[in-house]
Amino acid sequence: MLNFEYYCPTRVVFGKGAVARLPELIDKSQKILMIYGGGSIKKNGVYDQVKKALAGCDVLEFSGIEPNPKYETCMKAVDLIKKEKVDFLLAVGGGSVLDGTKFIAAAAKYEGNDPYDILTKGLAVKDAMPLGDVITLPATGSEMNFNAVISRLSTNEKLAFASEKVYPRFSIIDPCVTFSLPEKQTINGIVDTFVHTMELYCTYDVDTPLQDFWALGVLKTLIQEAPKVLKDPNDYNARANIFWCATCGLNYWMALGSVQDWATHGIGHELTAFYGIDHGQSLAVVLPRLLKNQKKVKQEKLAKMAREVFGVQSDDESVAADEAIEKTEAFFNSIGMKTKLSDYGINAGEAAEKIRARFAGRKTKLGEHEAIDADVSFDIVSAC
Amino acid sequence: MLNFEYYCPTRVVFGKGAVARLPELIDKSQKILMIYGGGSIKKNGVYDQVKKALAGCDVLEFSGIEPNPKYETCMKAVDLIKKEKVDFLLAVGGGSVLDGTKFIAAAAKYEGNDPYDILTKGLAVKDAMPLGDVITLPATGSEMNFNAVISRLSTNEKLAFASEKVYPRFSIIDPCVTFSLPEKQTINGIVDTFVHTMELYCTYDVDTPLQDFWALGVLKTLIQEAPKVLKDPNDYNARANIFWCATCGLNYWMALGSVQDWATHGIGHELTAFYGIDHGQSLAVVLPRLLKNQKKVKQEKLAKMAREVFGVQSDDESVAADEAIEKTEAFFNSIGMKTKLSDYGINAGEAAEKIRARFAGRKTKLGEHEAIDADVSFDIVSAC
Repeated sequence: MLNFEYYCPTRVVFGKGAVARLPELIDKSQKILMIYGGGSIKKNGVYDQVKKALAGCDVLEFSGIEPNPKYETCMKAVDLIKKEKVDFLLAVGGGSVLDGTKFIAAAAKYEGNDPYDILTKGLAVKDAMPLGDVITLPATGSEMNFNAVISRLSTNEKLAFASEKVYPRFSIIDPCVTFSLPEKQTINGIVDTFVHTMELYCTYDVDTPLQDFWALGVLKTLIQEAPKVLKDPNDYNARANIFWCATCGLNYWMALGSVQDWATHGIGHELTAFYGIDHGQSLAVVLPRLLKNQKKVKQEKLAKMAREVFGVQSDDESVAADEAIEKTEAFFNSIGMKTKLSDYGINAGEAAEKIRARFAGRKTKLGEHEAIDADVSFDIVSAC
Repeated sequence: MLNFEYYCPTRVVFGKGAVARLPELIDKSQKILMIYGGGSIKKNGVYDQVKKALAGCDVLEFSGIEPNPKYETCMKAVDLIKKEKVDFLLAVGGGSVLDGTKFIAAAAKYEGNDPYDILTKGLAVKDAMPLGDVITLPATGSEMNFNAVISRLSTNEKLAFASEKVYPRFSIIDPCVTFSLPEKQTINGIVDTFVHTMELYCTYDVDTPLQDFWALGVLKTLIQEAPKVLKDPNDYNARANIFWCATCGLNYWMALGSVQDWATHGIGHELTAFYGIDHGQSLAVVLPRLLKNQKKVKQEKLAKMAREVFGVQSDDESVAADEAIEKTEAFFNSIGMKTKLSDYGINAGEAAEKIRARFAGRKTKLGEHEAIDADVSFDIVSAC
């Protein structure tokens, strides 16, 4: 096991009716900015629940945070915060709204000239506004970590930052709000959680059996619960189990003291950037081919996964590893997620060329061994 | 899944050489009281590591916290804190030292007449001194929770309290400090962790598969790693895995949204009180008989455990549950832990009578269904 440090001061309030707990979690004398997205919270009832819980409080609203939140939009919120002297930020929505709010919290307190430096220069965030969230989408895990990904329209860049200062003070999770999710978003979230878990688990082994059992437990739970929510979107326990998998998929409990990969995300982001396919779709396409390409270095964990998750009996490590990859793709397909670029009308050879060119220009090296360069990425995407 | 709330602001610093991180974690301008036990930290080198890390700081010492920390001893520390105007408490030792320090932290800020009321009256702790710890024993999990158990000599009582105010600000875990543990303490700690996990896992099912996989992962890791540390006490990874199991055994990650038992501890505490056997020994004696006695209500989780942990193939729930119980006792025996009262020179019938009398007087009802009363406890202990 590698040395590690773990710290997460977020209070998680999970369950039916959790939004009604808001008044206990927030200082009601503060001026609150409620930040949300395109208005889905008005359809699923969360907007009304929040407004009711905060009745009598001084609440401003800022809407319009996009999927893949934009720097330009976030900066409009920063202007509003400064003008209105807001004290507390309340993100209400999915991971994009929360990621945007994390950046807004840091940018509003940034003392340099250009808050974009937080993203490009990797500067340590010295201070940030306090924030909390009502998270409505099981996918990114942003509700229990200190990361955020922000895109800039003017430069076509997608950049991440991380700071303990932007941990949510609280995260409210009511699985009931996911009953009304479009099926496509439910499926995307399940695949996103599955792939987060693989990025954290499926690397070379540094002897962390407990963390591995936890990661494999997330995979087993997803495989067991996914058909239930697809059959009955109002199955509370299945929705709760999937939401808790999503949160635990990226709160790093399964990754403490071990090694991380993130190459599937690295390549997937480019497919989204070039062709506009959903994040979850891009991951479902890339993961099986990346695992196949990197099988040699990931064989031990893949074989363990095959036995623990899929009940594979083979004693042959290579055979078991192949089965893990095949059964992963079969699981994605079984829940209605397509796993080939051609399914999305994309020519794999062309996509592979574009990504090779971009990665070569950036001298990109992905993966836990930094072994996935432009040429290896070309091979992986060609097979997608 | 039941509704739940989770909050733990403790910063965990885990790994080789972690004690050297102390100066980053502590405000060096503060007056620090280093609290420890009977001096084992002077033998295993931790005392010297801490003193070196805090060189130049204003550090007082308070030693002599006992196993099963005593109220009377803790109150002496409170007197010293008030006299010397101490700012920060640093617990260095095992769970007893840390539990004692948690109580000291609350008692030093208690504004009522008698801090013992914190334990007897279940009063909410309104304030507590800040504390951190260097934890040296993998067993109680106190390093990542807000609980403490304190005994009072004058009344022969053993009482618990819990408060978010006494969460450690940080917990430093260096598995190397456990290389020199006496084998008996290593074994006691493994059994303690195993039984904590069973208290949290082995109840009636409220549909929390992820939490269950995590609990079963702790059990599997303990079973896999225990023989390694007994064979080679200096096996770093095995020591690290067992320590992390102990911490996760009672940080409640595996219990969020599920039901807890604690009857094995309830009965075990009495065996320790009457006969002075170790906490771990008492648990190893009680657990198999309690599971047998409560098999009907715990059968589902026991059968799941049999299949996941012990690879039992039987489709018969009852047969599988029996195998889980037998294999648990066999595991305890395999690491040198005796599991019968007669092994400790105790007459089971006499012990059962004593415990029945005590529980009848207190109207005790233990377990997740509050179904284990004085008479059921008599049956369980008679079979021990």
